[in-house]
Amino acid sequence: MLIVQKFGGTSVGDLERIQNVANRVSKTKKEGHDLVVVVSAMSGETNKLISYAEHYSKTPKRSELDMLLSSGERVTAALLAIALNEMGHDAVSMSGRRAGIVTDNIHTKARIEEIDPTMMQSALKEGKIVVVAGFQGVSLDGNVTTLGRGGSDLSAVAIAGALNADLCEIFTDVTGIFTTDPRVEPKAKKLEKISYDEMLELASLGAKVLQNRSVELAKKLNVNLVSRSSFSDEEGTLITKEENIMEKPLVSGIALDKNQARISLMGVKDRPGIASDIFTKLANSGVNIDMIIQNVGHDGSTNIDFTVPMGDLHDAKNVVDTFVASGDIREDSYDDSICKVSVVGVGMKSHSGVAAKAFSAMACENININMISTSEIKISMVIAQKYAELAVRSLHDVYQLDK
Amino acid sequence: MLIVQKFGGTSVGDLERIQNVANRVSKTKKEGHDLVVVVSAMSGETNKLISYAEHYSKTPKRSELDMLLSSGERVTAALLAIALNEMGHDAVSMSGRRAGIVTDNIHTKARIEEIDPTMMQSALKEGKIVVVAGFQGVSLDGNVTTLGRGGSDLSAVAIAGALNADLCEIFTDVTGIFTTDPRVEPKAKKLEKISYDEMLELASLGAKVLQNRSVELAKKLNVNLVSRSSFSDEEGTLITKEENIMEKPLVSGIALDKNQARISLMGVKDRPGIASDIFTKLANSGVNIDMIIQNVGHDGSTNIDFTVPMGDLHDAKNVVDTFVASGDIREDSYDDSICKVSVVGVGMKSHSGVAAKAFSAMACENININMISTSEIKISMVIAQKYAELAVRSLHDVYQLDK
Repeated sequence: MLIVQKFGGTSVGDLERIQNVANRVSKTKKEGHDLVVVVSAMSGETNKLISYAEHYSKTPKRSELDMLLSSGERVTAALLAIALNEMGHDAVSMSGRRAGIVTDNIHTKARIEEIDPTMMQSALKEGKIVVVAGFQGVSLDGNVTTLGRGGSDLSAVAIAGALNADLCEIFTDVTGIFTTDPRVEPKAKKLEKISYDEMLELASLGAKVLQNRSVELAKKLNVNLVSRSSFSDEEGTLITKEENIMEKPLVSGIALDKNQARISLMGVKDRPGIASDIFTKLANSGVNIDMIIQNVGHDGSTNIDFTVPMGDLHDAKNVVDTFVASGDIREDSYDDSICKVSVVGVGMKSHSGVAAKAFSAMACENININMISTSEIKISMVIAQKYAELAVRSLHDVYQLDK
Repeated sequence: MLIVQKFGGTSVGDLERIQNVANRVSKTKKEGHDLVVVVSAMSGETNKLISYAEHYSKTPKRSELDMLLSSGERVTAALLAIALNEMGHDAVSMSGRRAGIVTDNIHTKARIEEIDPTMMQSALKEGKIVVVAGFQGVSLDGNVTTLGRGGSDLSAVAIAGALNADLCEIFTDVTGIFTTDPRVEPKAKKLEKISYDEMLELASLGAKVLQNRSVELAKKLNVNLVSRSSFSDEEGTLITKEENIMEKPLVSGIALDKNQARISLMGVKDRPGIASDIFTKLANSGVNIDMIIQNVGHDGSTNIDFTVPMGDLHDAKNVVDTFVASGDIREDSYDDSICKVSVVGVGMKSHSGVAAKAFSAMACENININMISTSEIKISMVIAQKYAELAVRSLHDVYQLDK
């Protein structure tokens, strides 16, 4: 098999940990696989370099930040190659440029445009282990770029796609994707397999493990992703396309998002285009709307409720205030003590009654549901934040996810 | 003027010092000059990275060391560019590759083959300050290389040559080249100008300031070098071609080299080619021979004395032992308590009596001269090491170098 393994900052956090990574890579190589290893900077390095830059400037040029930050991954890549060579392997480190990772020129947030895998392929053909500095590439005009948060994961997925690798293993400090956050529900179980779409919906479970950008890219490039731990030999969770999952569970997991606020608009004037006006202005202010509910009031005016990420609440208020001032909205109110619990599973597509079960589970616990939204593979409910953990545990229980 | 300024590891040793460098660069730019700035890694960084590599291997692959070590200069270059931008300048950092520095592929000791200054020139044309990561280049097959000790000086000199710069200023923690080591002779004076050839002969004075490789390259490329301090505004020493120096002093400086050992071969068999045999074998073992004296003995055999750098003594002994074992040499002896003092000056070419003055100065102090060698611009004498400082001071005095 051709395997791409990616080790993040914590996994290469010090010299001993880099040796552990070398041991693991060595083991995989000895099992007869071809290997490309993508590494991040040693944990703390990137923040150190950013603090250096901020010593001089609050707004350093992004192209200079990229020159600065891209050095961290080069160091780890070289050190890992040295460790592997010492163990008798033939390893070669490559910068993003050398690995053929071409990006656009949006410095510090570049997008991978294409990968020219020639150098990696010829090294692999010679039996070499290729160690690639993650997080970085080179723009078409030849400048070093970086890919932003989670960039090394993106490097790994894109390389796996370009090389048509059999697996792309993302190593972190957790052993995989769980049915829900084990800190909330200790009975949470690690999933063996999960589809890209479910993973995307479970983002709040997996955010610390896999970022959506990486999962989306893996879906697009049809890369088999594995989330597993660099500190144990335990099997991880395979994230793959739905067709590859034979037994589709009704529900795969329960996600919890406490980082939401609800905005209620009462007495919205009944004139055509008013809702469009409000939400266009909100979008233009960079406010991300999640769920929306509209009720027609008895006096002809309507009430609109919607949720936004907590960080967008302030901007959203500013927009809403202009409509209140102009009289288009009679009254507004805000609630940041809410949360969103979501039930996710591809099996829902072909089974009815999943939603009803969720609602009755909430009813059993006397939890009032404020808002509901559903998609093909997800049911989301907004409830009071104080019930968050109780709701997660009762949903986990009612769908028997601990079995 | 187009000026290349080079700042070594001590000059960019911490964030405050990098700010000082930015202030100095800013001042030069405001005086109306075009500027390319070459920087080393922050002092300690390179050693730290080497110790990381040595954690894994006593013999890390040189290509991986280059990948590892080349990161340090990139960091400094980016930080300096950020500091300059914050001060209102338009600065851009470039890696060795970006600056067009092409080398052979002898990793960790690469030689610059050519420089393609296109990127630097177009940035300069836009009024930008170009900040180049020193010490590094890229081989013709696209791998990162480093230039070995003193590599950033070489980068600066080569860039100055390629851009046909008016000056190449090498900033260190000393204010220039002195008539002799001021720690030995406090009356030593800073030289205003000195020729490339004198500088090369005074290497032991300037080794910590300018390495011979850089001076040789400056001579070859006809680059006007300036050795000056990054911690003061004092004028430095200009190292230039002899024609540019109007008033040629008889003697420019006194050099002292304590790092020498003498090897004496007694009763070397009188057969053709024996000396050639011995010195060929020494050369093949990597031993650098400095001075050689041969005396014909009264019994037809000869005695040969020669000096080697202390570090080569062990290897030299091994070679000599094989000749003693074969009977080609009757007896050998070693003396590592010697030193070499040298009187250097281009004026010697056209003046006689310079050597006689040196010998009589030694005689005055009752210092026995063991070996003598002379060149067009240098007289070197091997004496007992205990007289080293005394000899330097009396020579400094006899040629009135403090005037």
